[in-house]
Amino acid sequence: MNRAKDITKRIGVLGTGVVGQTLATKLVTLGHTVTMGGRSAHGEAATAWVASASARVASDGGASGGTALEGTFADAAGSGEVLINATNGAHSLDALAQAGAPNLEGKVLVDVANPLDFSRGMPPSLTVRNTDSLGEQIQRAHRGARVVKTLNTVNADVMVDPAIVPGGHAIFVCGDDAGAKETTTSLLVELGWPRPDIIDLGGIGACRGLEMYLPLWVSLRQATGTGHLNIRVVTE
Amino acid sequence: MNRAKDITKRIGVLGTGVVGQTLATKLVTLGHTVTMGGRSAHGEAATAWVASASARVASDGGASGGTALEGTFADAAGSGEVLINATNGAHSLDALAQAGAPNLEGKVLVDVANPLDFSRGMPPSLTVRNTDSLGEQIQRAHRGARVVKTLNTVNADVMVDPAIVPGGHAIFVCGDDAGAKETTTSLLVELGWPRPDIIDLGGIGACRGLEMYLPLWVSLRQATGTGHLNIRVVTE
Repeated sequence: MNRAKDITKRIGVLGTGVVGQTLATKLVTLGHTVTMGGRSAHGEAATAWVASASARVASDGGASGGTALEGTFADAAGSGEVLINATNGAHSLDALAQAGAPNLEGKVLVDVANPLDFSRGMPPSLTVRNTDSLGEQIQRAHRGARVVKTLNTVNADVMVDPAIVPGGHAIFVCGDDAGAKETTTSLLVELGWPRPDIIDLGGIGACRGLEMYLPLWVSLRQATGTGHLNIRVVTE
Repeated sequence: MNRAKDITKRIGVLGTGVVGQTLATKLVTLGHTVTMGGRSAHGEAATAWVASASARVASDGGASGGTALEGTFADAAGSGEVLINATNGAHSLDALAQAGAPNLEGKVLVDVANPLDFSRGMPPSLTVRNTDSLGEQIQRAHRGARVVKTLNTVNADVMVDPAIVPGGHAIFVCGDDAGAKETTTSLLVELGWPRPDIIDLGGIGACRGLEMYLPLWVSLRQATGTGHLNIRVVTE
């Protein structure tokens, strides 16, 4: 764990759902100081998460050195050097507005959300698509943030443990800030993604493709019977 | 070629563009009788295709036994036992209306088109998506046709020569008629797709995911520098 400690960061995870909890727990076990943010401080999910993540650190004698904290979206955004948007995609813009523009300014904002609309039942449709995307909306709403889209093409288990799915398989990054993509790539490597499997798709506009992939993922989930799935990109 | 001859079919290919020509040529070399259909008979592209495909058959002493013909959309649809929609996706409904409902009735209609909209420049957007798809529109417009979507996730070269891309990689089928999917699967095997790589995604609704994958394909094309690309589906 010493290697991880060398690059210990304060990370703000926005979102208290399965994706937020899974990412936040993994990051704490990697030695980071993670603040989970929700609509209000001391919410049930975030409070339970702090307890379980802290217990996990204690159980290995604190060797990982990570720290689990919770608060509002603004608390999480303000405390983090790197931020992760793991909120429900349909409400991400609201959540980030609550986080507050000054708390996002200059930060690497890793967007893992999908703008899923379950109001018509299954399969979900997308609240934004085709000529725009959630990632682009977030970048437009917060021009000072350095938005990088990644991890939205796999489920939470695979995000933090890519080796569940055997062999090489792809994870994508896109965004307009090269340095932010580098930071995000380092974070992906820490999560277990081999560097050759991390594919840079270019600018923030590539969010359209990454988000519009979701209906195919849902079909593949159904066809294969498992959410522990991913795609490998093969070329001649 | 004898194996191919045993299952020789009359195939109508609607569309005279690169995709139509590439598929039609391959099918002729496999021994099938192919009628390429366009907006009018004796169009320049279709006429040139008949000449080149016929020359190709002649050059191997006619061993493949295939036959290349051309005509209108209605001619192609009327003559084919199996039909392939390889028209520009933005105009496919028009083309199929011209083909005429009686010519589609009961036929396996393999839809390889993408509803791409280039009117806003690159990257293309989709003329239909999210809560509907071109495949579903075609099936609704022609309830007697047995629509199967396939091959729209790879470029024309890969469609007819999947081995260009090394190793196993996926091709998808979806549609509401199990028999039509079986016929389509046999056709894919003839084109060179190994049966284990052919993934059945279920009913015609899965067209949404297959068509909405296109923006990601365009990004991958750009990132990898080749259109000879595809994805492999990997699971735990």
